[in-house]
Amino acid sequence: MELKLYVDRLSQPSRAILIFCKANGIEFEEVKIDLAKHQHHSPEFAEVNPMKQVPAIAHGDFKLFESHAILIYLASAFPGVADHWYPADVRKRAKIHSVLDWHHSNLRRGSVGYIFNSAIAIAIGAPLNLEAAAEGEKLLSASLAKIESYWLQEDRPFLLGNEKPSIADLSLVCEVMQLEAADESERERILSPHKRILKWIEDTKNATAPYFDEIHSIMPLARENIKELKVQASKP
Amino acid sequence: MELKLYVDRLSQPSRAILIFCKANGIEFEEVKIDLAKHQHHSPEFAEVNPMKQVPAIAHGDFKLFESHAILIYLASAFPGVADHWYPADVRKRAKIHSVLDWHHSNLRRGSVGYIFNSAIAIAIGAPLNLEAAAEGEKLLSASLAKIESYWLQEDRPFLLGNEKPSIADLSLVCEVMQLEAADESERERILSPHKRILKWIEDTKNATAPYFDEIHSIMPLARENIKELKVQASKP
Repeated sequence: MELKLYVDRLSQPSRAILIFCKANGIEFEEVKIDLAKHQHHSPEFAEVNPMKQVPAIAHGDFKLFESHAILIYLASAFPGVADHWYPADVRKRAKIHSVLDWHHSNLRRGSVGYIFNSAIAIAIGAPLNLEAAAEGEKLLSASLAKIESYWLQEDRPFLLGNEKPSIADLSLVCEVMQLEAADESERERILSPHKRILKWIEDTKNATAPYFDEIHSIMPLARENIKELKVQASKP
Repeated sequence: MELKLYVDRLSQPSRAILIFCKANGIEFEEVKIDLAKHQHHSPEFAEVNPMKQVPAIAHGDFKLFESHAILIYLASAFPGVADHWYPADVRKRAKIHSVLDWHHSNLRRGSVGYIFNSAIAIAIGAPLNLEAAAEGEKLLSASLAKIESYWLQEDRPFLLGNEKPSIADLSLVCEVMQLEAADESERERILSPHKRILKWIEDTKNATAPYFDEIHSIMPLARENIKELKVQASKP
């Protein structure tokens, strides 16, 4: 049964799903839904995801959207996915759900508020909003601090004191990686106070090599494109 | 092994968990964390949930927060919970995760933005913010419309075309019920265009009787209290 991933690599949850499939040997067809060309608003894509957002998947005739639901489905429906990604144990699984739910209203909301309004918007033809970006940055920085002080326990490399990554590490790290779309100095300003976050990104990258870098290779291109668009927008 | 629920019935996800346990014959001790008295900021409660939010649970020495993670855990860890609440089938389960994930950035965000800033805030000593409330109402109304047009399929009573409720129905309906804290005319204005939402509330209430009404009996009291606080606040 064929698996199609409807994604744009510029979308952080799209990248999490692409890396998950590659790291677990799950075969798929990548269907690019180009956000900059507003392809997520096409009638064809509305058949896949009526909410008009990426990522979404079709597995045979089964359609699904929302990236955490997709990651859980892929980990459950495909044999051969190692247990550490989404443990069968009810309590270990519950803790992963807790991280993923927390993510929505904290790291995700802060990160999107910051990076969309300060950078990504211009790449998809929407206006920048520096006030909303500043508001997002506050929640983003508070969330990064909370990950360091609580979710990354003791000296273990991954969330929840784990020695190997789960779908929660992949989802949250791909979110933090969206800061690659910002100017280097901005990313440095926001991330450099968080040494454990930087190590966690490295550990997740190493655990999913070479796919993490392969899927994220779009980010420097996106950053240069956004810089150029900002220069053009500032010309009278 | 004892189950403790750390809740305030004024919190919509707290009510969802209370109703779930009662409807499924799960025994528990209800530990009230009074939000109006800022008990969620106490050092004792931080030991249960370092994020300082209700609901949270302790099941023996296992602690968990985030209401969706809790509902999934309870449905999985306690024998005797009927399958319709959280189906074992991987695809049915995936669809429920999809609703629950969608909820965070849509109905939940809109509802909290509206009702907290227009009503609940005053009950816990925080300022009202009518601009933020109006912003929340937009997303709330769009989310209610999306539930009617997409998640409530055909003429079935529950989300995803189901004949019996899942944890997603309970979570989302309890969120909509938070509008009981608003003035009756405000609630009428927001909900009356959404006839299927009103029927869905009734169906969920009937499926979990008598516990739904029992746990929601706090809401008219909260509404009257908020009205009174608003009157006091408007006096010079």
